[in-house]
Amino acid sequence: MTQLESARHGMLTTQMKKVLEQEPLTGEELLSGLKEGTIVLPWNNLRDLSTPKAIGAGCYTKINANIGTSPACNDIDLEREKLRVSLKYGADTLMDLSSGGNIKEIRSLLLEHSPVPFGTVPIYEVAVRRLREEKDIHDMTEKDILEVIEDNARDGVDFITVHCGVTLAIAERLETGVYKRLMPSVSRGGALLLRWMREHKRENPFYEYYDEILAICKEYDVTLSLGDGLRPGCLKDATDQAQIEELNTLGELHQRALERDVQSMVEGPGHVPLSEVKMNVRLQKKLCGGAPFYVLGPIVTDIAPGYDHITAAIGGALAGAAGADFLCYVTPAEHLCLPSLEDVKEGVIASKIAAHVADLEKGIGDSRKWDEEMAVARKKLDWEGMFQLALDSDKARKYRALDTNTMKECTMCEALCSVKQTNNED
Amino acid sequence: MTQLESARHGMLTTQMKKVLEQEPLTGEELLSGLKEGTIVLPWNNLRDLSTPKAIGAGCYTKINANIGTSPACNDIDLEREKLRVSLKYGADTLMDLSSGGNIKEIRSLLLEHSPVPFGTVPIYEVAVRRLREEKDIHDMTEKDILEVIEDNARDGVDFITVHCGVTLAIAERLETGVYKRLMPSVSRGGALLLRWMREHKRENPFYEYYDEILAICKEYDVTLSLGDGLRPGCLKDATDQAQIEELNTLGELHQRALERDVQSMVEGPGHVPLSEVKMNVRLQKKLCGGAPFYVLGPIVTDIAPGYDHITAAIGGALAGAAGADFLCYVTPAEHLCLPSLEDVKEGVIASKIAAHVADLEKGIGDSRKWDEEMAVARKKLDWEGMFQLALDSDKARKYRALDTNTMKECTMCEALCSVKQTNNED
Repeated sequence: MTQLESARHGMLTTQMKKVLEQEPLTGEELLSGLKEGTIVLPWNNLRDLSTPKAIGAGCYTKINANIGTSPACNDIDLEREKLRVSLKYGADTLMDLSSGGNIKEIRSLLLEHSPVPFGTVPIYEVAVRRLREEKDIHDMTEKDILEVIEDNARDGVDFITVHCGVTLAIAERLETGVYKRLMPSVSRGGALLLRWMREHKRENPFYEYYDEILAICKEYDVTLSLGDGLRPGCLKDATDQAQIEELNTLGELHQRALERDVQSMVEGPGHVPLSEVKMNVRLQKKLCGGAPFYVLGPIVTDIAPGYDHITAAIGGALAGAAGADFLCYVTPAEHLCLPSLEDVKEGVIASKIAAHVADLEKGIGDSRKWDEEMAVARKKLDWEGMFQLALDSDKARKYRALDTNTMKECTMCEALCSVKQTNNED
Repeated sequence: MTQLESARHGMLTTQMKKVLEQEPLTGEELLSGLKEGTIVLPWNNLRDLSTPKAIGAGCYTKINANIGTSPACNDIDLEREKLRVSLKYGADTLMDLSSGGNIKEIRSLLLEHSPVPFGTVPIYEVAVRRLREEKDIHDMTEKDILEVIEDNARDGVDFITVHCGVTLAIAERLETGVYKRLMPSVSRGGALLLRWMREHKRENPFYEYYDEILAICKEYDVTLSLGDGLRPGCLKDATDQAQIEELNTLGELHQRALERDVQSMVEGPGHVPLSEVKMNVRLQKKLCGGAPFYVLGPIVTDIAPGYDHITAAIGGALAGAAGADFLCYVTPAEHLCLPSLEDVKEGVIASKIAAHVADLEKGIGDSRKWDEEMAVARKKLDWEGMFQLALDSDKARKYRALDTNTMKECTMCEALCSVKQTNNED
């Protein structure tokens, strides 16, 4: 039985029980969320997944870290390090987006070391396989696609991104200029499919063969992440016709997955102006029947390459507060190059801040207690307490160690320390 | 005549004309904003200020960088470097918060090198002078205070923070527990004054001698920044009675300044939960007659020391979008130690991102065009264009230089590049 079938039978699986230890949910709430499709518990039934995670209504906001190689940056040891660092700083899930080196080998190794849900984007591998066989990247067939998806499922991948909502109808409207856009697609999968449809004048195979994809997912209990191939790639394109028509389709596909006992979540933008972030989340919840919303950022300005972990933390905090369930991290390297180990760390922490700020607003579990404990430690000038409560204890300790003496207060204020003054200390 | 008197006479001063070159305002709008007290143009009439700035309604959102020494970190060359870096990355104003070394000498040197408005917090110097004379820090008198304020004005300081709103009435309510707070004050000035009032059972001298302060400010045309000594220092204390009573008083003091031909702005929090940020801005605008609002952050969670430039960028973007006019940067060193040069850079850039996001929402000037130009450069894979448009060109170039070859796309996607696909390139 899939997790969803078990939920329908009112049975708490081992994975659900583990999730209940982490989340402020009752068993009934978890079962009901899974049944209604407002919560997913990504877990491949071939996987020995020690830390399953629930994503969706009532759960802590989760964050994902994208790792993986490209042809020019292909170092498997580095990717393992990225996995380790991501987990250390609190990534709830990992996605391997490798397009360089031996993709299957990299995936297997990373999967083996990932105690948390692990996702992939099979279309990358479909494209890379064709490139390596010196075939046209745009001649991929449904057979190629289903083969790679099944291979990923057999390897134990817990969730996969599939860009099923980039339909021929939208592609044609973009092509003919009925839908105007500065950047038609900034999603690798979305752009490949737009080009495929333009060349073949046929429906997107991920959409056309959706039932076949569902059959594979059901067999291995793989969760679908319904990709937004048409997410806006700049503020100007945000919340436009192409994006919203795709979103509407994803809502329909979410429903079809649910009917086939397959869990699914919906991916979202992207580049979004601050004032449109909340609307995007509310609209997704309405159009997609409350499906978990997995947003990439969103980033709220286009002009800060090198700092898009910050632009994404702004958008992510707002999106999460409005109800987004799952934030894909953005690193400082976004728009520039494959992230380094340090970029991965910065991305995870910025995203973690956004998720926590969202949880404070959602009022999830013990979120507010954490901040209160930090305030109490500060009031006591209890440095060890502050370090232990800090999101990144190491960095906080390092800054404190830079202080040139061992005084009780810090080098910012010293004798003028407001905490000492209000505590009536000299 | 002060800037405010000139505005009342409908006269555009040299400083106003320079401001009009930078802002999307007509002369009439600027004069009217200055008269009504919704815009300030901080400028000491003894100063040769080459780049005056306007802060307030209709202007681009401005950012301030705090620099300055402490006893343990006292290196004047480093402070000059901080000034240079702050200006390079877009600080609109600087404040010298020095409490170590020869404060007057440091101030004079930094002032000399600051082409933008320059502020100080005189109460620090009052306290430090007493400490150095081995007198009790809490025995300062109104004479000490007025002397230091006048000395700052004579040195050419353009704006000063004075914590006039920390009244005896609030101090007593905090003392007796009528107003409950986890952290009574996290402002150095506010905490010193609370303690002074507790020991002397007398009204805050900055409040009691406000007319004398106004007289000095009028003489030198110094702008007042009405400090929020009772800003919340943790989420739990946000938007509470003490904070709002002080804010109400600041609104009254802003009105009194206006009547005395002195420009003033109002300072704001601090630590504020995401959902209370907009309310704080709207309330300030209501209670303070539309006075320019100068917020410190706000930071939206307490648990990320080492990353408070990010927590402040989240709060600052939201505050700015809601109408805050002036963002005080927060560096990664906040809550831990005096910022390094690198921290200053990180703080300025994060704050600049927040200010720009705010301007996109306010629809100020050409803000949106900047993002659109970046999108066009990305669509063309025009790297040089992207670098030139990036908030930090150097960092963007550095990331790109890490790429191991000179291909047209970046090492994130390479052959799968979505831009190439949608441009129909191979």
